[in-house]
Amino acid sequence: MTESKDVNAGSTASKERVAQFNQRFDFGSYAETRQFLDELAELSKRDDYYPDVSFGKTYANISIDGEGQAALREMNSTFIADMQALVTKTKN
Amino acid sequence: MTESKDVNAGSTASKERVAQFNQRFDFGSYAETRQFLDELAELSKRDDYYPDVSFGKTYANISIDGEGQAALREMNSTFIADMQALVTKTKN
Repeated sequence: MTESKDVNAGSTASKERVAQFNQRFDFGSYAETRQFLDELAELSKRDDYYPDVSFGKTYANISIDGEGQAALREMNSTFIADMQALVTKTKN
Repeated sequence: MTESKDVNAGSTASKERVAQFNQRFDFGSYAETRQFLDELAELSKRDDYYPDVSFGKTYANISIDGEGQAALREMNSTFIADMQALVTKTKN
């Protein structure tokens, strides 16, 4: 997950007019975290879209910047909704 | 990957005397990134140690804080060396 430095604020400001999408998911076990990450990988391959992901034993944080959100909109992708649906499925 | 806030600087300073270990690996394809992450998961299960990982399509960044490094030393784990060896294997 990269942070934009002030020195580039001008050039990145226009690109980042849309706020970055960040969502954290917490899981009950590492196995659940892995299952989510594996299924997220399938979504990424389906849409050829690869968000920035950070994870540990029982959490995953997904970040999608303004550019990424625009790209997903352009291809009418349901990536975000499908990702959120994965979590409800993983936890049942 | 969490950043320590100033308000807790006192309490985290002692824990973070050892500098955080950060290593970024860049890959030629998403398939290589996935292979590395899958093999890293096996190392994590072997040592019951789960570093903070952030990744995108063709990179992975591994962070191990002072506490994690102390835990790995205590169990004479070769986690870091084995992780680095994975990369040379993944890229061949």
